[in-house]
Amino acid sequence: MFSKWPLLSTLRHYSLSLAGRDLLAASLVSLLLVPQALAYAQLAGLPAVAGLFASILPLLVYALIGNSPGVALSFGPVAVLSLMTAAALAPVATAGSAAYLQAATTLTLLVGTLLLVMGLLRLGFIANFLSHPVISGFVSGSALLIAVSQIKYLLGVSVDGLSLLQVLPGLYAQLGQVHQPTLILAGVSLALLVLLRNLHWLGVPATLAARARQFSALMVILLAMLLGALLQLESYGVKVVGEVEASLPPLLIPSLELPLVLTLLPAALLIALVGFIESVSIAQSLAMRKRQSINPDLEMLGQGAANIAAACSGGMPVAASFSRSALALQSSVATPLVGVFAALLMLAAVLGLAPLLEHLPQAVLAASIVVAVLGLVDLRTLRRTWRYSRQEGAAQLATLLGVLLHGVEAGILLGVGLSLLLFLWRTSRPHMAVLGQLPGSEHFRNIERFTTVQSDSVLSIRIDESLYFPNARYLEGRIAELLASRPQARHLVLMCSGVNLIDASALDTLEAISERLHSAGVQLHLAEVKGPVMDRLRRSNFLDSFGGHVFVSQYHALHSLDPTTTERARQLPASHE
Amino acid sequence: MFSKWPLLSTLRHYSLSLAGRDLLAASLVSLLLVPQALAYAQLAGLPAVAGLFASILPLLVYALIGNSPGVALSFGPVAVLSLMTAAALAPVATAGSAAYLQAATTLTLLVGTLLLVMGLLRLGFIANFLSHPVISGFVSGSALLIAVSQIKYLLGVSVDGLSLLQVLPGLYAQLGQVHQPTLILAGVSLALLVLLRNLHWLGVPATLAARARQFSALMVILLAMLLGALLQLESYGVKVVGEVEASLPPLLIPSLELPLVLTLLPAALLIALVGFIESVSIAQSLAMRKRQSINPDLEMLGQGAANIAAACSGGMPVAASFSRSALALQSSVATPLVGVFAALLMLAAVLGLAPLLEHLPQAVLAASIVVAVLGLVDLRTLRRTWRYSRQEGAAQLATLLGVLLHGVEAGILLGVGLSLLLFLWRTSRPHMAVLGQLPGSEHFRNIERFTTVQSDSVLSIRIDESLYFPNARYLEGRIAELLASRPQARHLVLMCSGVNLIDASALDTLEAISERLHSAGVQLHLAEVKGPVMDRLRRSNFLDSFGGHVFVSQYHALHSLDPTTTERARQLPASHE
Repeated sequence: MFSKWPLLSTLRHYSLSLAGRDLLAASLVSLLLVPQALAYAQLAGLPAVAGLFASILPLLVYALIGNSPGVALSFGPVAVLSLMTAAALAPVATAGSAAYLQAATTLTLLVGTLLLVMGLLRLGFIANFLSHPVISGFVSGSALLIAVSQIKYLLGVSVDGLSLLQVLPGLYAQLGQVHQPTLILAGVSLALLVLLRNLHWLGVPATLAARARQFSALMVILLAMLLGALLQLESYGVKVVGEVEASLPPLLIPSLELPLVLTLLPAALLIALVGFIESVSIAQSLAMRKRQSINPDLEMLGQGAANIAAACSGGMPVAASFSRSALALQSSVATPLVGVFAALLMLAAVLGLAPLLEHLPQAVLAASIVVAVLGLVDLRTLRRTWRYSRQEGAAQLATLLGVLLHGVEAGILLGVGLSLLLFLWRTSRPHMAVLGQLPGSEHFRNIERFTTVQSDSVLSIRIDESLYFPNARYLEGRIAELLASRPQARHLVLMCSGVNLIDASALDTLEAISERLHSAGVQLHLAEVKGPVMDRLRRSNFLDSFGGHVFVSQYHALHSLDPTTTERARQLPASHE
Repeated sequence: MFSKWPLLSTLRHYSLSLAGRDLLAASLVSLLLVPQALAYAQLAGLPAVAGLFASILPLLVYALIGNSPGVALSFGPVAVLSLMTAAALAPVATAGSAAYLQAATTLTLLVGTLLLVMGLLRLGFIANFLSHPVISGFVSGSALLIAVSQIKYLLGVSVDGLSLLQVLPGLYAQLGQVHQPTLILAGVSLALLVLLRNLHWLGVPATLAARARQFSALMVILLAMLLGALLQLESYGVKVVGEVEASLPPLLIPSLELPLVLTLLPAALLIALVGFIESVSIAQSLAMRKRQSINPDLEMLGQGAANIAAACSGGMPVAASFSRSALALQSSVATPLVGVFAALLMLAAVLGLAPLLEHLPQAVLAASIVVAVLGLVDLRTLRRTWRYSRQEGAAQLATLLGVLLHGVEAGILLGVGLSLLLFLWRTSRPHMAVLGQLPGSEHFRNIERFTTVQSDSVLSIRIDESLYFPNARYLEGRIAELLASRPQARHLVLMCSGVNLIDASALDTLEAISERLHSAGVQLHLAEVKGPVMDRLRRSNFLDSFGGHVFVSQYHALHSLDPTTTERARQLPASHE
């Protein structure tokens, strides 16, 4: 395990040149992280400074025990997790109250603890419940929902709710109360953000335009801070972030009341899994570029520890962020120590920015969120999935709409449920082919696709799927059907080259099939059974009791059971289809 | 659809000899059904006569529209469903009250409606969520729980509760109140039942002993009815079934209050699925013996209609019963009309037995239930599953204990959850083999099992599993790992002979892998892709964008990418391992 602990080998070979590269990367990422941290805290319903705090201690902890420099660099508050946090906390406390803050620390502690426990139990595979279409639908739906949730800040009205069905009627009712100065400020910010992100339209050189795009949110927010302080915008009725104490991150002790823990547990599990998937994808994509590999269970442990640190210093769940990982890809990060540098820079930011934060208008933060998250809405993938598979496309669309209309948790559960159902439906009817011998050869192929020679007394069937509980019952029915149409068959040979597993349900089914075939005067045989499957069958008494043979190949089976037809077919001239 | 409607073809060819066989089978099954109907009604917390009513109209309806004579013969009240009914109704009403009866009709109507809807939507595959080990653990656990739940009748005490944790402390507290005459009656009944079921111990000829075993419950219950009427057992304080009106089945209109419907819906779904699985297994096993096949969706429709009939005439969910299907197997049932005869005989039984039921002691019914259900406890299967697969055995044991300790619903949900988790865990780490060329041949095999020749510049990997969301992430990590240890590789060829499906998640992963391999200077190729998989890939733009080839075989791939090594290996002498 220690050989996989990157910090140790890093320290052994650390040099000034490496430190220089780490410092550069850390500076760039901090400039990106500051506006995101402020904005995502607002999204989560927490004080803006909580986002900054969540970017200090967790980064340090991950840098010390985490296992990927790329993840260390992009670690911190994440848009989707912040929305999920707001959704989880809304039913238990009012945003802004002390109880809300307390519940946020509990939630974050749960997220961290779940990740630690799952990492120790090597349960990382649970993340596989979330298929790509479901995740993509979830991210797009969440991004749209985040954008909608920020409209109230842009208009200067107050509306509650965490789904489209709750927010839209509220917004409509408040349209008369729109605060003009706030709306103007929001409009200018949005325009400025769009402009800065698209300087290439004005003929600005590509690299400069790309940098401007990356740091557009930072520039607009710094500008807004300065203007806010100079013009005292709050005196015009514009809502601002408000007074912030310049301090080190507070050390909070998370509340652990049992009823609260039980209420937040399902949401914490979803947050943990979504955060883990995001981080592990980033880690894997960075590792593969360098021909390295990562250990997902170690990754889970590192993230668990970082979230526990987050619980003690601000209360926002943290993970690696896709938007910041883009930076990590460009800047060829050297070592995990980059996290240490970034944490120190964020600490400086807290101490330096706190006085300015007071006058920062919430509408400007909201504008930066809207522009950022709309980039996450990915309808192209939806179209692509739909073209590739109607069913998976439908699952993706259902997840997106579920999130939008009923909130993040309902949406993701709907998606997971649908993809499991879909999977069961698909795997419950495996492709089965009746086989015949290709003339002039020892090969057996699907009689519907090739001209073949079939034996009257031996029915050959190939199953293109593992045999297990989702399809055990279907197998029974299908074989009965095929035999019903072949009254002369005396032997049935199952070709198992596509069977990677036979579970206990399928073993029962094979026994039942074999027994019932006996009473109908037919003997079951197997052919081309894979090694691991055979090892397992030997642990049951099926091989002794089913009365048939296990043949090395379909040809051997047919040659032994119906030599005349087989030999005749082999000597026919090969057909040229 | 009509060509599959058995009644029509039956009536066309019906004869006196067929009618005679049907009548004989119906008489035998009615003799078995009478005691079971009485006992299972008691188990479900309903009046004893409700069980008889549930064996009339539903049988008629199934006979008219159902699709399997074997199922028609074994249709009616079932032990496990009765326990599930009691568990579902306990939270909403007190057993014996009018509200309880009303809720029972609602539950049964829901079961019927769900079956109809699932049949029409062809959702029969949902039953596949229940693997054999889970069903077996569920049946054993339920049987033990049923036996435990009857102890109070054997002792003449009253105890509430529907799990071991609820019943045992109650029984312990009541030990002082045991009613002596009831206990003696129960003891004698149990002894007589055990004796009648095992007459072969006394040297009685096998066929006679088998008949006595089958009708032991009927004999003991008839005897108890007569004794009860003669001795007026209730005057000794023995609890009896009580007054029953000899009547036709009442036509009830099920209550459909929304809150009640929503409360009972999950239980109704489980009852529908468990009943369906039991019936469809029986139908399949009977059909296969005669080289026929059944249509599960039609089966679902027939059962749905029968349950709706049950809801209107007594309120007990019905299905085909394993114990009665044994009789169906022996008596070579002729036609579905057997159900019509059985229904008429049960009607006669209601009218004839009603006066005698009044004096039937509950303890005798309980004794017949205990003896019957203990035969369902199947620890041999548990041992066998455990030997075949530790994980599936653990899921089975967990289901059994879950049912016993926390009740039927919690137990079955635990089992389903565990088997899905287990399945995901297993399929999330598919077997992958690095391949090398067998000397002197064009075949490629696992380098760990065979002596092979490997190319330095081409890495060959075979994946023994479909590529889909449970294993998409693992694939990425594993390929990175394999490449990390082969710095000289310039090409990666995935042999897809075991890949029956590539879903949208796996397609994303393949694209990501291909792209990252490019940035590491490696080109991805595919080989031996199956037809249906290829058809799907053509609907994406993967084949245009990944930059590699799709080769017909692994040999063609290697021969094209590294001809020198491949040709050299082919000309080596074959090894003789």
